[in-house]
Amino acid sequence: MAQRGPLGVAVIGTGKMGADHVRRLHEVTNGARVAAVADVDAERAKRAADGIEGCSVHTDPIAAMRADGVEAVLIASPGPAHEAALLAAFAHDLPVLCEKPLTPDAASALRVLEAERRLGHRRVQVGFMRRYDTEYARLKSLLDSGELGRPLMLHNRHRNVSTPPGFTSAMLISDSVVHEMDITRWLLGQEITAVTVLCPTPSGNAPEGLRDPQLVLFETDGGAVVDVEINVNCGFGYQVQAEVVCERGTARIGDGHALVTTAAGRWGGAVAQDFVERFEDAYDRQMQAWVDATRRGEVTGPSAWDGYATAAVCEAGVRAQTGGGRIAVELVERPDFYR
Amino acid sequence: MAQRGPLGVAVIGTGKMGADHVRRLHEVTNGARVAAVADVDAERAKRAADGIEGCSVHTDPIAAMRADGVEAVLIASPGPAHEAALLAAFAHDLPVLCEKPLTPDAASALRVLEAERRLGHRRVQVGFMRRYDTEYARLKSLLDSGELGRPLMLHNRHRNVSTPPGFTSAMLISDSVVHEMDITRWLLGQEITAVTVLCPTPSGNAPEGLRDPQLVLFETDGGAVVDVEINVNCGFGYQVQAEVVCERGTARIGDGHALVTTAAGRWGGAVAQDFVERFEDAYDRQMQAWVDATRRGEVTGPSAWDGYATAAVCEAGVRAQTGGGRIAVELVERPDFYR
Amino acid sequence: MAQRGPLGVAVIGTGKMGADHVRRLHEVTNGARVAAVADVDAERAKRAADGIEGCSVHTDPIAAMRADGVEAVLIASPGPAHEAALLAAFAHDLPVLCEKPLTPDAASALRVLEAERRLGHRRVQVGFMRRYDTEYARLKSLLDSGELGRPLMLHNRHRNVSTPPGFTSAMLISDSVVHEMDITRWLLGQEITAVTVLCPTPSGNAPEGLRDPQLVLFETDGGAVVDVEINVNCGFGYQVQAEVVCERGTARIGDGHALVTTAAGRWGGAVAQDFVERFEDAYDRQMQAWVDATRRGEVTGPSAWDGYATAAVCEAGVRAQTGGGRIAVELVERPDFYR
Amino acid sequence: MAQRGPLGVAVIGTGKMGADHVRRLHEVTNGARVAAVADVDAERAKRAADGIEGCSVHTDPIAAMRADGVEAVLIASPGPAHEAALLAAFAHDLPVLCEKPLTPDAASALRVLEAERRLGHRRVQVGFMRRYDTEYARLKSLLDSGELGRPLMLHNRHRNVSTPPGFTSAMLISDSVVHEMDITRWLLGQEITAVTVLCPTPSGNAPEGLRDPQLVLFETDGGAVVDVEINVNCGFGYQVQAEVVCERGTARIGDGHALVTTAAGRWGGAVAQDFVERFEDAYDRQMQAWVDATRRGEVTGPSAWDGYATAAVCEAGVRAQTGGGRIAVELVERPDFYR
Repeated sequence: MAQRGPLGVAVIGTGKMGADHVRRLHEVTNGARVAAVADVDAERAKRAADGIEGCSVHTDPIAAMRADGVEAVLIASPGPAHEAALLAAFAHDLPVLCEKPLTPDAASALRVLEAERRLGHRRVQVGFMRRYDTEYARLKSLLDSGELGRPLMLHNRHRNVSTPPGFTSAMLISDSVVHEMDITRWLLGQEITAVTVLCPTPSGNAPEGLRDPQLVLFETDGGAVVDVEINVNCGFGYQVQAEVVCERGTARIGDGHALVTTAAGRWGGAVAQDFVERFEDAYDRQMQAWVDATRRGEVTGPSAWDGYATAAVCEAGVRAQTGGGRIAVELVERPDFYR
Repeated sequence: MAQRGPLGVAVIGTGKMGADHVRRLHEVTNGARVAAVADVDAERAKRAADGIEGCSVHTDPIAAMRADGVEAVLIASPGPAHEAALLAAFAHDLPVLCEKPLTPDAASALRVLEAERRLGHRRVQVGFMRRYDTEYARLKSLLDSGELGRPLMLHNRHRNVSTPPGFTSAMLISDSVVHEMDITRWLLGQEITAVTVLCPTPSGNAPEGLRDPQLVLFETDGGAVVDVEINVNCGFGYQVQAEVVCERGTARIGDGHALVTTAAGRWGGAVAQDFVERFEDAYDRQMQAWVDATRRGEVTGPSAWDGYATAAVCEAGVRAQTGGGRIAVELVERPDFYR
Repeated sequence: MAQRGPLGVAVIGTGKMGADHVRRLHEVTNGARVAAVADVDAERAKRAADGIEGCSVHTDPIAAMRADGVEAVLIASPGPAHEAALLAAFAHDLPVLCEKPLTPDAASALRVLEAERRLGHRRVQVGFMRRYDTEYARLKSLLDSGELGRPLMLHNRHRNVSTPPGFTSAMLISDSVVHEMDITRWLLGQEITAVTVLCPTPSGNAPEGLRDPQLVLFETDGGAVVDVEINVNCGFGYQVQAEVVCERGTARIGDGHALVTTAAGRWGGAVAQDFVERFEDAYDRQMQAWVDATRRGEVTGPSAWDGYATAAVCEAGVRAQTGGGRIAVELVERPDFYR
Repeated sequence: MAQRGPLGVAVIGTGKMGADHVRRLHEVTNGARVAAVADVDAERAKRAADGIEGCSVHTDPIAAMRADGVEAVLIASPGPAHEAALLAAFAHDLPVLCEKPLTPDAASALRVLEAERRLGHRRVQVGFMRRYDTEYARLKSLLDSGELGRPLMLHNRHRNVSTPPGFTSAMLISDSVVHEMDITRWLLGQEITAVTVLCPTPSGNAPEGLRDPQLVLFETDGGAVVDVEINVNCGFGYQVQAEVVCERGTARIGDGHALVTTAAGRWGGAVAQDFVERFEDAYDRQMQAWVDATRRGEVTGPSAWDGYATAAVCEAGVRAQTGGGRIAVELVERPDFYR
């Protein structure tokens, strides 16, 4: 690593996720410091910056990006605010870690993509943090080794205890299954070409009107078939599992066997209760990887193309969910810039 | 159990499966004896009967059914010969254990169904032996207890080392997935209403022209969604796994943890190499259950209706596989006789 | 199998275990029938024989052995009655399956051993049924293959929900750990040469005065070291596990992963609640193996020598438990007759 | 966390472990920097400091402790050099993270203990990093919750692929089992009062003269019994497992199920090949916890008393190993200072 001071980061948005990133940068990450924070709610921004020496507080994201010592930007504001913040970061030529989604739809994601291309060099990493999970990373590494042959199928389970108020059927796709879209594309190195959705009679646990659970199916341009059980009011815990079926064998992650107890007629372990418990390490690693790469002057991790492609698959998924049947995914041609 | 001598069984067909049933009846099952065997190949029938006191040898199935001491019939001849043998058994009013499939198609299965109804009492048990597997039985019992709530999804894996010469894509459905059709219907107590098939690019292990593996999807009249990975040239072993996802939890069988070893940098266990290794106990239990019920004058186990319904789902599955898309399953109305 | 009628068995003792063996012989085992039963309690004997055609009822074991059609004897009476019954069976030259223990102490076991030798051919199989458990059998077969190299250590867990009234600290050794003594000798093919016992402060679940749990250690003449956690008021279930540590790897049985459920924040499986649930199949297989061997005119399975050797180790164990320290096991030289 | 600049650390000893700690402080830990390094080999010290701005290089540990910006000391020199370095750190009243062992024997550990007491406040944390492993931490937290009742037994497995040249039987105790000594004391909150060692015939993998594997037994002042399989030439991998048996259940860690593959007739996972792979995260967490506590002006983690007590148990263990039998552990009375 080049010898230099800690990376000054401006954090845009200090809600639950943004405030957690401020804490992470301040207390966990090596080689970074929070140089500025911005939030439309000035009090919330102030609370997030409390006790952090040299951290300025703003309500305007652009002011935060221009603040003293800012060398990089972390965008954790709501999705609809991402496009403007990304373009502002491009205008100041600052490296960005942008929480997912890149933007809320494929059209706006495409605009961001074009803007980054005009800039002439990559600046954006999208916050698909599962790629930094140790188990997914081992799975990816095993697939890339070729040891098990070509991947044929990928089975996924994605279960949440319950949904917050206002969670819609479309959000099952765009907030939850979007992770499996990115993971499918990343693990297999293939684009998703079609989406089909099958809906069983909803669980009694699902709020009135929510079609939960669902079985979401992807086909890829590499000829793989992928299924996702999305089940967001399962009641028992937060569980993310994946099994890749290859020509010479299968590989599975997510069993969660860290601590096995036997008591009262049962053996087994606890199921995590939320994504923080399951993926806290992945968030830490993602941040460290972004800070390390940025200090080296590099951009690694999920790109704006990944943000765009998942947005397009989400749109197909939402249509498949409502209209039924198999919906093809339409992508623009991938620019060489993102290869 | 009523006090009486061992049940005299005529075994029709002494190929690989039939000869194994002869051995089972003679050496494993309590309360039964092989009274007659029949095979078109007289030598083969003779070899099967060798050393069994009081067992007559025939080339004509009907002669075997009429032989001295015969009280019940086990049909293990090729599928196309089943209908005639079943009708002959009905004519002699003999209880039958018929290897699956009941008959090769829905139309002939329906004829058998009608013939049994005309007889006025049930005579047929179909050889869906997975219902007698200890693990499936525990899963069924857990579902029936209602402890986990209503079943929403059922995920299945069905993997074979390799296929024999002449195995076709249609046989993936009618020879292999037929087991998951029966298991789905039995576990959930629901009929299958539609079938969809997704085919990834075939595995390099699959013989030229065989679409293997496939992802087969069922919808049921109880609103459940079922997926089956059928993967019959997986190379590594014979594996049958099932996970039911219910409203309050999930239940999984088939992990095969009986013996766990650690050596040479790996921990884990062996995968069974064929269905005999995995389901030998189920075959033994099926035979004992059939003999015990028959001696009590009862008919239990999978009925001719089960044979007919799976034949109809198979036909839909083969069409879904070739024509693509979702194919609805058409069943005649279920007679009260089979409720 | 030689062609002949079913083996006529006299069952001596029709208490809980004996009555269960009568049921097994009558309803489960192939090729056997219950020809006579005997119990000091005539009513109990009568109930056990109820509905079994051709089964005579006795209060005198010797009368039962002499009854019509009796070709073999199963001894399931209390341990102190075994010696007399065994000697009577020898006098009539009948093959015997004798429930464990062979006799209650090493001296009497030695007398039985001598009597069998004088007879000139082996007649006794001792009911160490764990050898017929599928998991133990696979473990034995793996060890015998030499694949993992020479065994160095054997770790055992033996847990019961709770003890019946009157269960003493000595019975922890002679009723419970006796199984691990036999299994150690059988799996490793070695004799136990010394026993050490370490007692933690008793569990709050243990009845007043019972030293439970205990850690029992064996050394063998093959240089292996064995530990047994005996824990008979563990409250949560019946669990029998074994791990053999060899030069090139380890092998473990008893995890009990047949059905894995996830619900209410936990994944895992049920623990069996008693030995019947865990070892029912082993009892069935033991009986079938004994009947099959007897009909072939052979004696297989655990011998009177095994009964004697475990009795001697038990005596050392009880002394180690009370006197503390390491107690050497003294065996007479093994006669060629038992090699 | 109090607002201040990064903690300046002097690293004493830049061999394999020391150099790794330098890298960790520089690249992984938040809120710390390497201010000075010292090694008897000046070239090695220089290499370790290469590229770290503001890091001075020394051959004299005391010079490093006095260097500009040094606020804390990390001792990673060979064990025999620890006592002098610790006393020097005390003289400069610097907080210390001292790699295990505190010192090579109980007598010298006692001198360190006395010196720290004279200082009047705690300064030393000993590098028993397993306490920072996520799995051990969850196990400890479960035990402390009281949910499973009082601990009765603790079973441990500690396996290494192979030993480096010069590894002696005594080092099995003092280099390897020392971890289980600390873990036993920490998990149970009890002191070890006696040690017994049983040695099977050595494995064919063990170098000539090394008694490997061994079964090491502890008794504690809380009435628990502990066994440790130490097996340092097992060939297949690095494995650390622990199972606590409590009054109402058991809890186990170390199964290593993160990635499960099925291929070539086997299912299972990889075994780690060294302690770095298994415990890398624990080293990272230990360092962060020490830096965070030190910046808050606190001393947490394993104390000099823990270093002394394990040294005393090691001495008993080595005697038990050679002399045989049960060896009592003698400890001085625990000063209130360390409660």
